[in-house]
Amino acid sequence: MDPHRRVFRDGAVLIDGGVISQVGRTGDVKPQRRAEFEIDAKGKVVLPGLIDTHVHLAQALIRGSADDTALIDWLQKFVWPLQGNFDAEDGKVSAQLCMVEMIKSGTTTFLESLLHSRYGFDGIAESVGRAGMRGFLAKTVMGLPGYGSEKSIMHPGMIEDGETCLREVESHFKRWNGKSDDRIRVWYGARSLGGCTPQLYTQMAEGAKRLATGVTMHLSEVQEDVRYTKKEFGKMPAEFMDQVGLTGPNVVFAHGVWLTETEWKILARKGANVAHCPSSNMKLSSGIAKVPEMMQTGVNVGIGCDGGPSNNSYDMIREMKTASLLQKVRTMDPLALSAETVLEMATLNGAKALGLQDQIGSLQAGKKADLIVVSMQKPHLTPAFNSVSHLVYAAEGSDVETTIIDGKIIMENRVVKTLDEEKIIHDANEHATKLLQRAEIDITPKWPMEK
Amino acid sequence: MDPHRRVFRDGAVLIDGGVISQVGRTGDVKPQRRAEFEIDAKGKVVLPGLIDTHVHLAQALIRGSADDTALIDWLQKFVWPLQGNFDAEDGKVSAQLCMVEMIKSGTTTFLESLLHSRYGFDGIAESVGRAGMRGFLAKTVMGLPGYGSEKSIMHPGMIEDGETCLREVESHFKRWNGKSDDRIRVWYGARSLGGCTPQLYTQMAEGAKRLATGVTMHLSEVQEDVRYTKKEFGKMPAEFMDQVGLTGPNVVFAHGVWLTETEWKILARKGANVAHCPSSNMKLSSGIAKVPEMMQTGVNVGIGCDGGPSNNSYDMIREMKTASLLQKVRTMDPLALSAETVLEMATLNGAKALGLQDQIGSLQAGKKADLIVVSMQKPHLTPAFNSVSHLVYAAEGSDVETTIIDGKIIMENRVVKTLDEEKIIHDANEHATKLLQRAEIDITPKWPMEK
Repeated sequence: MDPHRRVFRDGAVLIDGGVISQVGRTGDVKPQRRAEFEIDAKGKVVLPGLIDTHVHLAQALIRGSADDTALIDWLQKFVWPLQGNFDAEDGKVSAQLCMVEMIKSGTTTFLESLLHSRYGFDGIAESVGRAGMRGFLAKTVMGLPGYGSEKSIMHPGMIEDGETCLREVESHFKRWNGKSDDRIRVWYGARSLGGCTPQLYTQMAEGAKRLATGVTMHLSEVQEDVRYTKKEFGKMPAEFMDQVGLTGPNVVFAHGVWLTETEWKILARKGANVAHCPSSNMKLSSGIAKVPEMMQTGVNVGIGCDGGPSNNSYDMIREMKTASLLQKVRTMDPLALSAETVLEMATLNGAKALGLQDQIGSLQAGKKADLIVVSMQKPHLTPAFNSVSHLVYAAEGSDVETTIIDGKIIMENRVVKTLDEEKIIHDANEHATKLLQRAEIDITPKWPMEK
Repeated sequence: MDPHRRVFRDGAVLIDGGVISQVGRTGDVKPQRRAEFEIDAKGKVVLPGLIDTHVHLAQALIRGSADDTALIDWLQKFVWPLQGNFDAEDGKVSAQLCMVEMIKSGTTTFLESLLHSRYGFDGIAESVGRAGMRGFLAKTVMGLPGYGSEKSIMHPGMIEDGETCLREVESHFKRWNGKSDDRIRVWYGARSLGGCTPQLYTQMAEGAKRLATGVTMHLSEVQEDVRYTKKEFGKMPAEFMDQVGLTGPNVVFAHGVWLTETEWKILARKGANVAHCPSSNMKLSSGIAKVPEMMQTGVNVGIGCDGGPSNNSYDMIREMKTASLLQKVRTMDPLALSAETVLEMATLNGAKALGLQDQIGSLQAGKKADLIVVSMQKPHLTPAFNSVSHLVYAAEGSDVETTIIDGKIIMENRVVKTLDEEKIIHDANEHATKLLQRAEIDITPKWPMEK
């Protein structure tokens, strides 16, 4: 996928020092020196690494802990108490588990949206560096000075103080932003509409401007978001965010299910981005975002997998299909959100949302070498009519064979080279078991479990 | 999954001569003689083979040929002309391609719904026998004596004659029904609401009674189905089917998107079954079937993957997740269609739809040994909280490691033993290419293809 969206039947990509130096027909691509490594992609498809614009690393450890429950129980009985009992080791193991899964299903870049202090920022950032991924880490910023709707219901282990959060973002930024060959970035992660004062939002907007970094936040995920800002501020959510200065191109709003046309226009004009999370919105019954209309209005929309209890997988290939099919049935128009469009959302639009449109998101000379190789000689990807269609509508995460980030082979033949997959699975099971005990939560399957 | 829905943390299944002889705690299961083979399923889940209640074998060969097009173009410009140019070799290769994919994603039994004469019934039935699957093959029955809405628009290669169809079903039935240790069954496949006369339906109902076999048909897939029967017969589709005698327990209606409460009640009372096809209904913008309400009324609902141009995969594991998530967002109730419910739909309900509720669909002593082993020690299935949740919400088809049908190991460690996967992929590509040429159809990807 190059800027002209060309598909080469017999193409080659030359990588030099972490950067793509040539892309084209195999005969036209000529290395100037002997290549260090060569990957034969015959019968395979090479495409840009996928970009997940909304993910919660710390929720991998609680995957499947809160299924088939009402949203309020989901939060109050499961997700918050579990995450409110996290320690830094849990955070690290969860992030590693999540990253192994992402690497194995072709995601090379992600925006983690809410890192609570208790998850241990340093351990997670260090893991991103080691994993070799391109990770945008948004430290949670929240402050509930008396009015926040979340205060009364939130688990005490999840509550943080606004001023401390802001200071922590700055200190994480100084320590980690741009590290690991610029693969790590530090952002502000605004808690939610009910989780911050207007002043705190403005402080984040100013901080992000000063540090030249980004802000991400859940916006209009559920109808309650709209009721809340209407009641508290007499405005729609995006109007309110615009008022506090948080609608610039360095802002990524997750979900945006209940945004209205007036709000799309604000986001389009100011350049703010939306991370569409179809599986999560379906599973939690949040609603269906009006993605094609939003994009038509000029909003840049990427795709996000969200989290372990809301999706429950971190597989962007699967998410692309869901995104397309969901819009086709919502609009009753089978032409809505074509395979090509969702593939762009998962690559170029994601890159734009993170301000990296000149660096990643397509295979193009001069861009960073973030790319994946997908094996297509499989029954479920046969016959070989149209590789874009197969990638979106028929492929699964495990068809990704090789993942290259920043020119380095992170996974080869499905073996992740940077993380110890077996150890991570073992550690995750151990940490998850202890976490359940600590949080005093019993995940009882509905069907009787015999010992 | 036994009749009490028990989940054994440390369980065992004993198979004797194609039949499950014992199921229980490992310590309680005692073979009376030395086992021929033993599969260690530590860290894995053993469950009943999945049952696909609506599938088109002959569409695997045209997977991805008709994406992102309006339904009428989908049929007229792609699916019908392609399938109207099939020969028996195409049909056989397509069926084999489809079966390899099904076996590899855990499907052990399927109901193929529309086998046109030109696909070559014998070659397909013989392939089912060889593949080792449990296949219900419905030979298309159609007749358009002057009024059929499909006649004017249908590709000539797809048109068949009613009397001939009926005779062919009988002859296929005599030749194939009950063959391959009763793994092959022959059904009537009524073309569609616009594709048969009322008399032809009644003849099918009588024939099915005489042969003690089943009938399957697309019903109320699209709104046009409702308009058609209202206009032609002054009745809703299921009312009309009831009038012609086709609402018994030996009937499977595919889709049922636009069925109303009155119609659910008829189906529930008479025992007719519905095959819900969520991905297909989404991709073709058919609408969303009211599955929980239908089941609440007493209708037995299974799950179907439909076909290569409408889904585009034959992966029941993926389909289970889609089924659950789609209902959660439609009803705005996250409790709708729980993981447990969709797993029952994909197993027990499927068995019931095919009249095999006493023979397959659960792990139970005395039932046929159709079962699959799913590897759970993977990052995307970690931590090990609840295997039912992971199977439905997080697993993918390729997590299925072993597929056993009728007590025989059909796939072991992802290698299909009964079909030559590599040859089938090769043959399918060759046949698909020739088919495009014969049908004079150009599948031009939207993005420019460089040679």
